[in-house]
Amino acid sequence: MQLPFTTLSAFRALMTEAPGADSAASNAARDRNGQLTKPPGALGRLENLAIWYAGWRGDAQPQINAPQVIIFAGNHGVCAQGVSAFPAEVTAQMVANFEHGGAAINQLAKAFSARMDVHALSLDTPTADFTQAPAMSEAELLEALQTGWAAVDPQADLLVTGEMGIGNTTAAAALAAALFGGTGADWAGRGTGVDDAGLSRKAAVVDAGLALHDSADPLEALRCLGGRELAAMAGAIAAARHHRIPVILDGFICTAAAAVLEKTHAGALDHSVAGHLSAEGAHQRLLDALGKTPLLNLGLRLGEGSGAALAIGVMKGAIACHSGMSTFAEAGVSDS
Amino acid sequence: MQLPFTTLSAFRALMTEAPGADSAASNAARDRNGQLTKPPGALGRLENLAIWYAGWRGDAQPQINAPQVIIFAGNHGVCAQGVSAFPAEVTAQMVANFEHGGAAINQLAKAFSARMDVHALSLDTPTADFTQAPAMSEAELLEALQTGWAAVDPQADLLVTGEMGIGNTTAAAALAAALFGGTGADWAGRGTGVDDAGLSRKAAVVDAGLALHDSADPLEALRCLGGRELAAMAGAIAAARHHRIPVILDGFICTAAAAVLEKTHAGALDHSVAGHLSAEGAHQRLLDALGKTPLLNLGLRLGEGSGAALAIGVMKGAIACHSGMSTFAEAGVSDS
Repeated sequence: MQLPFTTLSAFRALMTEAPGADSAASNAARDRNGQLTKPPGALGRLENLAIWYAGWRGDAQPQINAPQVIIFAGNHGVCAQGVSAFPAEVTAQMVANFEHGGAAINQLAKAFSARMDVHALSLDTPTADFTQAPAMSEAELLEALQTGWAAVDPQADLLVTGEMGIGNTTAAAALAAALFGGTGADWAGRGTGVDDAGLSRKAAVVDAGLALHDSADPLEALRCLGGRELAAMAGAIAAARHHRIPVILDGFICTAAAAVLEKTHAGALDHSVAGHLSAEGAHQRLLDALGKTPLLNLGLRLGEGSGAALAIGVMKGAIACHSGMSTFAEAGVSDS
Repeated sequence: MQLPFTTLSAFRALMTEAPGADSAASNAARDRNGQLTKPPGALGRLENLAIWYAGWRGDAQPQINAPQVIIFAGNHGVCAQGVSAFPAEVTAQMVANFEHGGAAINQLAKAFSARMDVHALSLDTPTADFTQAPAMSEAELLEALQTGWAAVDPQADLLVTGEMGIGNTTAAAALAAALFGGTGADWAGRGTGVDDAGLSRKAAVVDAGLALHDSADPLEALRCLGGRELAAMAGAIAAARHHRIPVILDGFICTAAAAVLEKTHAGALDHSVAGHLSAEGAHQRLLDALGKTPLLNLGLRLGEGSGAALAIGVMKGAIACHSGMSTFAEAGVSDS
């Protein structure tokens, strides 16, 4: 596959050249929505979702036939600071579980007829501990962005990016703090389930990372504080924009990775919807900062793209109604 | 089909004899949930949904293979009071639309592989205007309850009951007020979209109904203030309990009908979950009175079972994870 960028500055430039939605398709979809056999607005948020989706697909009466779920996995040097309730080897064990079909995301992808791909990124070479050094070199960041970009099937019509990486809520908290301000205490959460002492440790680790690195630039923040799976998600979400594939964002880690794009170029996430509100503490704060309202709020905090995959069902329902319903004229129903 | 009741008092007695959940299956499901490859609680509400579903199905590792959506339609004499933005003939027009596959609920049922049945209940004979007389005779109430009961496929493994009936948010508001107290202003909403004057009129109509009828008994409230499609939904939800089929409640009208059962016998809705929070004004109040937390909150206010049908996707996701995931031991993943 020919990648459209071979340098970080070329990736950055792609953000500013990204295509927008097709306003003719949005307008035609809005017009169609007004003629469907229901009182105006009675399908609530499903109506706006369908119009939004139609615009990005350039089709006023679209279908969702090929959703893709991509899981990226990475390991984190910051685990040396004792920030997770699980040992780092669980990342590779869970990748095997994904490959054998045993994880939650496998079941959800199957339930909503989504293709699922798994990319393990250099698990044997964790990123550097960001309290000591930048998590990644520029070459490592570039490679992860490229892996993410190339993982997206240009024929997909809906994308979910998920992640697995012991320690990555700490990386995401540090990244979010670098992007939006605040301290470790504002952004650190319980992740897989650390206790109060673990939570304090995570906050202190985030503060140490913020103190060490100059992370005013979003991509530089991703390099110094993030991780390979976060960078790959950012690359995949940017690729989806390039291909005009709508994206459902998952929880805290996915949203932090996506936020790098929005902070690099305002509007870069206009093709993305928040799939759910995670129970991970600072996800609401992050969604507020991005102006995104989650579709679901069911207390999930698993990652793996699980909350976003569940929201594929909502998107499918929205598009099924929009594209499948009869108009008042077609059905012979009085419209007032 | 042999119906287990031929009188209203026999129906009432069935409530008190209804089966409960299988606690051995619930306990086994809870045990299984604790062994699945995820941090404890990381699937949030999906975990409790799966354990609840397993208990009602009597199977610790259940599947959802045969969801059923049933739409009941009825006409309302109270439409003479000008309570709807749409004319009463729309009820029959929408029944034809259901039968031809053109409505929102057709698309949602198809999207989530649910069987869909439509029962039009004496559309040419509206209930009486409840500001003048009881909406139904005892015979009419009994027949509607029986129609609802018989409509449930005993082989279904998940049930959604939906409705269509111009004027039925007014009937549901009056019923809710009779069951839980309060006035027309507390329970009347905008329905298909009445203006402020229409809303005041609905509230006054509800108050007139409450003043006319002695509706201290829940089934008597249903008879005097409800409607055939509301009674049929109550009958269907009771039948589902009899067959141990979990139910997803839809919006305001469905929930008001279901509340008749709960007020007749506390616990009668333990096999039911609230599918969504409707934008119809008093649905939150009604769910609070029943102690039910909705799965979705997407601003729908269409009825037809649409919000509940969308929540079939959530239930399917919950059961897919619960029954399909590997345990830590099976996957060779470290559990701490």
